[in-house]
Amino acid sequence: MKIAPTPARLAGIAALLLASTASATIPPPPSAVDLAQRGEDPAWAITEGLTTEIGPRMAGTEAEAAARRWAVTRLQAMGFANVREEQYDMPVWVRGAEEAWLTGPFQPQKLAIAALGNSGSTGAKGLTGQIAFFDSFDALAAAPDQSVKGKIVFIDNHMERAQDGSGYGYYGRGRFAGPNVAAKKGAIAIVIRSIGTDAHRNPHTGVTNFEAGVAPIPAGAISNPDADQLVRQWKRTLQIRTNESAMGYDPEPLTMKLVLTPQSLGTKHSGNVIAEVPGSDLAASPVIVACHLDSWDLGTGAIDDAAGCGIVTAAAKHVMSAGQPRRTIRILWAGAEEVGVFGGKAYFDAHGKEKHAVALESDFGADRVWRVDFKLPDSAKPLADRIATALAPFGITRGKNPAGGGADVGALIAAGVPAIDLQQDGTRYFDIHHTPDDTLDKIDPAQLRQNVVAWTATLAILANSSDSELP
Amino acid sequence: MKIAPTPARLAGIAALLLASTASATIPPPPSAVDLAQRGEDPAWAITEGLTTEIGPRMAGTEAEAAARRWAVTRLQAMGFANVREEQYDMPVWVRGAEEAWLTGPFQPQKLAIAALGNSGSTGAKGLTGQIAFFDSFDALAAAPDQSVKGKIVFIDNHMERAQDGSGYGYYGRGRFAGPNVAAKKGAIAIVIRSIGTDAHRNPHTGVTNFEAGVAPIPAGAISNPDADQLVRQWKRTLQIRTNESAMGYDPEPLTMKLVLTPQSLGTKHSGNVIAEVPGSDLAASPVIVACHLDSWDLGTGAIDDAAGCGIVTAAAKHVMSAGQPRRTIRILWAGAEEVGVFGGKAYFDAHGKEKHAVALESDFGADRVWRVDFKLPDSAKPLADRIATALAPFGITRGKNPAGGGADVGALIAAGVPAIDLQQDGTRYFDIHHTPDDTLDKIDPAQLRQNVVAWTATLAILANSSDSELP
Repeated sequence: MKIAPTPARLAGIAALLLASTASATIPPPPSAVDLAQRGEDPAWAITEGLTTEIGPRMAGTEAEAAARRWAVTRLQAMGFANVREEQYDMPVWVRGAEEAWLTGPFQPQKLAIAALGNSGSTGAKGLTGQIAFFDSFDALAAAPDQSVKGKIVFIDNHMERAQDGSGYGYYGRGRFAGPNVAAKKGAIAIVIRSIGTDAHRNPHTGVTNFEAGVAPIPAGAISNPDADQLVRQWKRTLQIRTNESAMGYDPEPLTMKLVLTPQSLGTKHSGNVIAEVPGSDLAASPVIVACHLDSWDLGTGAIDDAAGCGIVTAAAKHVMSAGQPRRTIRILWAGAEEVGVFGGKAYFDAHGKEKHAVALESDFGADRVWRVDFKLPDSAKPLADRIATALAPFGITRGKNPAGGGADVGALIAAGVPAIDLQQDGTRYFDIHHTPDDTLDKIDPAQLRQNVVAWTATLAILANSSDSELP
Repeated sequence: MKIAPTPARLAGIAALLLASTASATIPPPPSAVDLAQRGEDPAWAITEGLTTEIGPRMAGTEAEAAARRWAVTRLQAMGFANVREEQYDMPVWVRGAEEAWLTGPFQPQKLAIAALGNSGSTGAKGLTGQIAFFDSFDALAAAPDQSVKGKIVFIDNHMERAQDGSGYGYYGRGRFAGPNVAAKKGAIAIVIRSIGTDAHRNPHTGVTNFEAGVAPIPAGAISNPDADQLVRQWKRTLQIRTNESAMGYDPEPLTMKLVLTPQSLGTKHSGNVIAEVPGSDLAASPVIVACHLDSWDLGTGAIDDAAGCGIVTAAAKHVMSAGQPRRTIRILWAGAEEVGVFGGKAYFDAHGKEKHAVALESDFGADRVWRVDFKLPDSAKPLADRIATALAPFGITRGKNPAGGGADVGALIAAGVPAIDLQQDGTRYFDIHHTPDDTLDKIDPAQLRQNVVAWTATLAILANSSDSELP
């Protein structure tokens, strides 16, 4: 394998030469990776600061605007160039009251519920209905309208834990598409088992979408322990129906009362925050690194995605501190990702026609990077080899999947911009994802720093890559 | 060490004799411990049934009354004798709305809060005040009134994890006594860091008490992640005050808005449920085994204390199934433990003058028994030796501390009734204790069964003990 001499590598060689002759009086400047490993930790400072001083940052709200002001101040103070907000408009949805009760045939019991983004409202008085129980999204999709009409649909698909988070797409359909399907079949509301892998009374929210022309119905997620409870009661009602005297209860169906009063506030301002490390070659296309600044409203958005902003920004800072790179590094703290990637789309609308060398995003928590995936032009094979070699000492292996990029750079990648994924360990990500539990204490500082080291090593190579390697 | 021949031991010897001669056609009857190890699991059935069909069982409410009806039906169906409710009256407190916000000097942020039992109300509009911050209960107790008057007290003592749960008494003072002290010093409200060892957004409720003549102030607990957030903001306000320009904020104090609207409903009915395994010797005093039927309202009271009722009842059932014991076993499912041990006191008022051989309670979750402690008369030394020997194969060692008994048999033990504690592993108990997370999924069926085996072995020995060993 041919390995090209990068500045970091040359600095390493120089250090070895100096050490071996033992005659040098001026130590070599630290490499960016040295800084990331041993220096200050801007990733922690950003994650801690944003979650503490701003907290939840729901898209299109005053809290998100405050987060943008915070971001501009912080990024300027860190010495980045061209720090700016780029505004756009978007439809805003906010949470209201939320309560759910299992109302019969057993003693009434309150459930822990959260409305899904874009949920309709029950009105303040709420609604009560029979449960139409489905094991999975597929079972709901296959059900005749008659089995759903006038009822509250429940989907009970328990997400399984996976290091690469690969169950999210499959199990997530209950949230992404379940409400729309239920609404079209005539359900009065839908409640799903949270798309999550934990066993705490914290529901997992997240966005859902209704087709044009389909009126949004109330849609919520209950926590896994609450879903377990609903399932136990449901099974008892089945038993009751086949053997009326078995449990000493009348053969009544399982019912639920639901109060969800979210509101759609119409079109409001949101925005992206952008900062740059200017490259020495003004003709070279920039490397773009992204995260998202907005968060769900239940937690303080620590793993999703303050940590991502901390990681990409810290890496860019370390590369900048080690010496001016050839290419510009553009940092995108995107707005309004959670509710529909409005920031990513707005970035593409404004900048999609500009050339980008490569795009990366950090938006999967703060646990360690364990694999690197590439989607690069053939010309970049030596570049990918250099990155894989640089990452191996940090416990990161090379994957065989093409990189997918992140949501906020998704439009760029769909348009042909190369991508690299530094895959994070997602084993516990969906314990916390979109819940009230997404708070700073869930961040492991040692794993956060490993992310920064991996990103710094990658970014140092990318920002100094040649025009023959990347567009 | 002299070991007396118990029925279980004799059955074991008989089984060995039969096996060695290989000529027997009639196998010996199973011992109670055999039944507990290999038979059905009434402990799980009770825990699952009570938490599923009734759920939360707040003292003095209709839910607790429904639980008593459920208990009577279940205990009768299991074949126990003298199954009955014994009613008493008690003051009833119920939760209302509860919200808390950190309101400045940073972006407003909502906290996860639960009112403490006997908390006063803020009224529906709530109240807002400056935080008076204390590291510990002792710091609050030592503070001059002036530092507290007109403010919202916060106590930040983080409970440490221990297998025997021994931190509860020390750290718990913030909850037990903090509100009364704060009220006497003129605080308008008090918020404490939850008395718990987890890092989830689930506050730990629990009872507090105000002295006669002290008007209850609003009193709540916030979750550990919320307390961490409050501490981080508090530290920033200190920094701001010493260096006004450091953070770009005005030097304002930390403030909180609080809405807690619990209600005291006056005197209501509650009750104990009692069932018996009648002994063969009507002159012998009974063995009493207790648990509590009520629970806090936030969870379904699985570890606290449906499992305890499951354990003691399953053990009594196995002893009964193996053959009539000499002494009566009296099972007490006490009411209204959480809010002031009203059931235990009522039992003592009604039965305290009767002789009791020994009292035991299970009220520390469902994780394994790891130690046995005794508080017995000198005459019972051989009895304690037999129990310790019987428990050793199940991984249970003999402790050196005197047994304390449980809350519901506390008055009996204070009056001189002997006690034995089967100490459960409490390492994770205070992760869940008094939170919404006290749900069935937290019960490990294997550890629950180990409890039943240990209780069955102990109860078989106790219920067949002689009058020379126990009173």
